[in-house]
Amino acid sequence: MKTYFDCIPCLVRQALELARFVSEEEGLQEKVLREALRLVGEMDLRQSPPEMAQKIHRLLRFLTGVNDPYAEVKTKFNILALQLYPELKKKIADRDDPLAAAVRLAIAGNIIDFGVGFAVEQSDVTRTIKDALAASLDEAAIADFKQTVRQARKILYIGDNAGEIVFDKLLIEQLPHQKITFVVKGGPVINDATMEDAIETGMNELVEVIENGSDAPGTILEDCSDNFRRLFADADLIIAKGQGNYETLSDIEKNIFFLVKVKCPVIARDLGCKVGEMILRKSKVHNDIVDLVEEAK
Amino acid sequence: MKTYFDCIPCLVRQALELARFVSEEEGLQEKVLREALRLVGEMDLRQSPPEMAQKIHRLLRFLTGVNDPYAEVKTKFNILALQLYPELKKKIADRDDPLAAAVRLAIAGNIIDFGVGFAVEQSDVTRTIKDALAASLDEAAIADFKQTVRQARKILYIGDNAGEIVFDKLLIEQLPHQKITFVVKGGPVINDATMEDAIETGMNELVEVIENGSDAPGTILEDCSDNFRRLFADADLIIAKGQGNYETLSDIEKNIFFLVKVKCPVIARDLGCKVGEMILRKSKVHNDIVDLVEEAK
Repeated sequence: MKTYFDCIPCLVRQALELARFVSEEEGLQEKVLREALRLVGEMDLRQSPPEMAQKIHRLLRFLTGVNDPYAEVKTKFNILALQLYPELKKKIADRDDPLAAAVRLAIAGNIIDFGVGFAVEQSDVTRTIKDALAASLDEAAIADFKQTVRQARKILYIGDNAGEIVFDKLLIEQLPHQKITFVVKGGPVINDATMEDAIETGMNELVEVIENGSDAPGTILEDCSDNFRRLFADADLIIAKGQGNYETLSDIEKNIFFLVKVKCPVIARDLGCKVGEMILRKSKVHNDIVDLVEEAK
Repeated sequence: MKTYFDCIPCLVRQALELARFVSEEEGLQEKVLREALRLVGEMDLRQSPPEMAQKIHRLLRFLTGVNDPYAEVKTKFNILALQLYPELKKKIADRDDPLAAAVRLAIAGNIIDFGVGFAVEQSDVTRTIKDALAASLDEAAIADFKQTVRQARKILYIGDNAGEIVFDKLLIEQLPHQKITFVVKGGPVINDATMEDAIETGMNELVEVIENGSDAPGTILEDCSDNFRRLFADADLIIAKGQGNYETLSDIEKNIFFLVKVKCPVIARDLGCKVGEMILRKSKVHNDIVDLVEEAK
């Protein structure tokens, strides 16, 4: 997804909120704000918003000297999600369609996102979980997802945030997990899950976990390691969590299922849905190709 | 009022909305956006937000070649307000306290403000009028306002927007209008009232109307004409309408009553009220001086 004009003031607002999160010093906040204005002013709008966010977060780390401002928040939400885990696992098991329930919860877990510029509270998580099990979700997409997972040989599950990773674990437990490799970021950015979070939550005991070699809040292929790119190319199914992965992968010609809790009006417009909705969406580009192949038959 | 950090992303957003209002051409919108980012990035934060807004509006006029993008909107709201005028005049006359009702309506008219980044609809105006007559307003401030008006010899009534100017007329009719001079902007900026609007609405038939010599969306004294500054210095009471006048005059040591419909969280915080509230507020600086004088006695 390209950067829309509406992303520009939002990126500036996020830079300010980040600066405030990291430091109470107004001089530093102003410096971050001015540098962010300069960076955003020079931005190539064909790039996706996470490419600019990556630059802003690097700037923030450089100016503040704080390498992982969200370290505490990440651990807090890992612990919270691990506390919920047994109850959620039971909820899934008790359902007529455990996999569909696990998909819902995995999307609900995507509420734990500090990248959209608001502080997530424990109450947001519990409310979202409750809503998720009742909310409508595209039934055809779920059927398609199940079939695609069954047929796939190699699945790359690209995670999004710490805390949320426990919800990913609940879903992966319902999938043929021997086919799955889980992907975390190569370095800290916002509250995105890194290898530490995979270890803290035991994801590494369930499936192989790899780092993507990048500190962008999304998956910018050209910024990722050769190893990740090779696995991405080899996989015949990508499961991609969250807005950042949607923004960076929505134009990639690949068999991708996006699992997103929509938190921003620009992405909502791009997806053709409303802010707050839970989305399970197969990559458009791939569908176009399938359609063309179908038509050619 | 200085520019708060929160004003920065908002100024960028406003520049974008303005660009979209003036032109559908994306290339031009992008140009305005990038130039606005540069201007805002270089901004002196001790200045008030209208000082930056003035620069952004000049930039917009320069880049688009459109001198008065809101001309049509201004006339539309003048006509709407003139249509409401007889009914509102009757509403005021029927009240136990006509002056207090006129103050409420004058503040309600301040909803017709395109400077805060949203499109005002006719329904917003009628709803705000209805709410205004019922909403709570500082009774002590109204009493103080009445007394101050009675004692004043020369009153400068600094208007804000087109359309709203008809509501100002309704208030001025309840005041000793031979003491009042009404002030409009020296050139078009957003939907702020200019001499044309004073003539369209007949304000010039009720009181003397003068231009302030500036195209800022507020009252930046150093940017105004010598004539205006002289009248400002001579007046013993200033009635100042709207957020822009509050932002630019709140730190001036002068006997000022601000009449504001609060539309922005930063100004709400500065005023110690909520967004949406109607405010009648005597200038703080002046009160401080009075307090000091009282204490010294």
